[in-house]
Amino acid sequence: MATSETPIKVLLVGTGALGSIYGWRLDVSGKAQVTAVCRSNYEAVKSSGFYISSLAFGDEVYRPHRVVRTVDEAVADGEVYDFVIVCTKALPNLVDNSDIIAPAVQNPHTIIMLIQNGIGIEDPYAARYPNNPIASTIAYLDSSQPSNGTIKHGIVTMLDMGLFSPKTASYDTSAVSARVAALSEVWKESGVPAMVSEDIQKSRWAKLIWNASFNTVSVVSGGNDSRQMLDSPECKALIHSLMTEVIKAGETITGSKLVYLGNQATADDIINTTDGLPKPVTPSMLMDFRAKRPMEHAVILRNPIELAKKHGVDVPHLETVYALLTMVEARYLSQPKL
Amino acid sequence: MATSETPIKVLLVGTGALGSIYGWRLDVSGKAQVTAVCRSNYEAVKSSGFYISSLAFGDEVYRPHRVVRTVDEAVADGEVYDFVIVCTKALPNLVDNSDIIAPAVQNPHTIIMLIQNGIGIEDPYAARYPNNPIASTIAYLDSSQPSNGTIKHGIVTMLDMGLFSPKTASYDTSAVSARVAALSEVWKESGVPAMVSEDIQKSRWAKLIWNASFNTVSVVSGGNDSRQMLDSPECKALIHSLMTEVIKAGETITGSKLVYLGNQATADDIINTTDGLPKPVTPSMLMDFRAKRPMEHAVILRNPIELAKKHGVDVPHLETVYALLTMVEARYLSQPKL
Repeated sequence: MATSETPIKVLLVGTGALGSIYGWRLDVSGKAQVTAVCRSNYEAVKSSGFYISSLAFGDEVYRPHRVVRTVDEAVADGEVYDFVIVCTKALPNLVDNSDIIAPAVQNPHTIIMLIQNGIGIEDPYAARYPNNPIASTIAYLDSSQPSNGTIKHGIVTMLDMGLFSPKTASYDTSAVSARVAALSEVWKESGVPAMVSEDIQKSRWAKLIWNASFNTVSVVSGGNDSRQMLDSPECKALIHSLMTEVIKAGETITGSKLVYLGNQATADDIINTTDGLPKPVTPSMLMDFRAKRPMEHAVILRNPIELAKKHGVDVPHLETVYALLTMVEARYLSQPKL
Repeated sequence: MATSETPIKVLLVGTGALGSIYGWRLDVSGKAQVTAVCRSNYEAVKSSGFYISSLAFGDEVYRPHRVVRTVDEAVADGEVYDFVIVCTKALPNLVDNSDIIAPAVQNPHTIIMLIQNGIGIEDPYAARYPNNPIASTIAYLDSSQPSNGTIKHGIVTMLDMGLFSPKTASYDTSAVSARVAALSEVWKESGVPAMVSEDIQKSRWAKLIWNASFNTVSVVSGGNDSRQMLDSPECKALIHSLMTEVIKAGETITGSKLVYLGNQATADDIINTTDGLPKPVTPSMLMDFRAKRPMEHAVILRNPIELAKKHGVDVPHLETVYALLTMVEARYLSQPKL
């Protein structure tokens, strides 16, 4: 186990615009060592590292402590990882990625940290690794990867993490919480605001308010940024209705008021905050749509809708957008990429 | 006034795939004389007529009794029209077309017949011509205009017509009904199943069940025909939800059960009927979408939604689709046509 002398051993799976930034901030601290699993970008990262241009942290070439092609390669020398951090997209409707990390998951030592959006992302991991703690984590991050190995970052990096289902855990939750807190401290020392939440599902639902509305509508409305969406009164009303459904479902399911960026979550406040941003936001789903990549609609819409209905909350606007989004995606995924 | 000896004088406004077919069936009877107002297609129709290829009625060149460029030209010789039949698209959000026919509307003699889809299409005409009867009419027609002046028609031509707001009419409703029935007889003699309904709004809501669901979803789902829509379980469920909302709103507003093609309207029946068609249906809105033409969403969705809410019926699925449809349209209308 990591002490203050031994660095925390981290295996990073998913080294896109999100994983590379958080891996970087761990490695630069000197208190954690990141082994990065690079699949499509292995050659570029192995030879040249990530070129990161960050408003918050400056421009730097980030060479991870170690770069490997596969998880098997990462454990071939017997290395034991304290954390496996998964930063891939959550696409449970297409692929169950939970098996990929299996060679690196020591039972019960390894903490599986999932930095992903949406609801229900932990389920495949909890089913496959019942004795391992899962640190469910949400990122607020404005980064993109304009080309392979080149990362652009703005100023936001906030992380919000917490144990998944601590009440039914088979492990010593206070010991695990201390290890998660220690990792969050490493991030904080290198400039990443990282907080530990007791009820991370509340945070997930709170973040979903924006993701299930602006994100999804940007695509099904034909490809619009936040400014274009808010300029249409009908679209603004729709976003309000979607947010209201998410808030109602989330509060019913978690049993308490949702809090978004420090304040009680209301649709009006979140819309007004978005409206007041200096630049229009291009939601991540819209970027996926434009690049003809799969969208995270299963964890952003399907799972929340199913949970809401199970708890007796009607979510007709969410259902409508979900049906349309899956149709839109099916069309472009079936077409050849240009 | 028309008697059995004098032909019924008809001014036809809107001579696309719909107007040309119904004008043709009136003219060929010999019992009505159609003056066709041709705007964009004047030169073609004046010199060569409409080339109509119809499975039901055969192939024929249709030369209207008279072809004019404008309504002013149609009345320049003092001609008095018994009917002005409007077959334009209903786009009240973009343009109030009711003024176009003004020179030909004799107060109170002329019956204004509107052959259009949707709800609330009569309002601009009723406001502008308070003393003229309005014959509100729905067409079931499978025709298209692949090029200017060339019309392709299948086998369906059914018309369903009735007086708009007869209870508050300032005219002799039985005399007007007789004139409308006489026109319907002319159509019937030339093979068009034309019926007169006492409560035409019931028929409008019944037709809306399909138009507010398959038609609209075909566009906001990214461009799908009926087969593609029904192959997605989520999309099929959405269409069912939209139909259920239309049926509930229509039955609340009209005060009686809706009937669709002779049977009590249920979402399941209408979906199954569509599912069982030998060929997938390409809805008219999808054709408009592909051609980057304005869509009739104001009369297919906006007006029904407003009426439903006024009557206390929740229509969240319809509202969602409406918001998205207007956004999708705004995008393509703002782009140059290729």
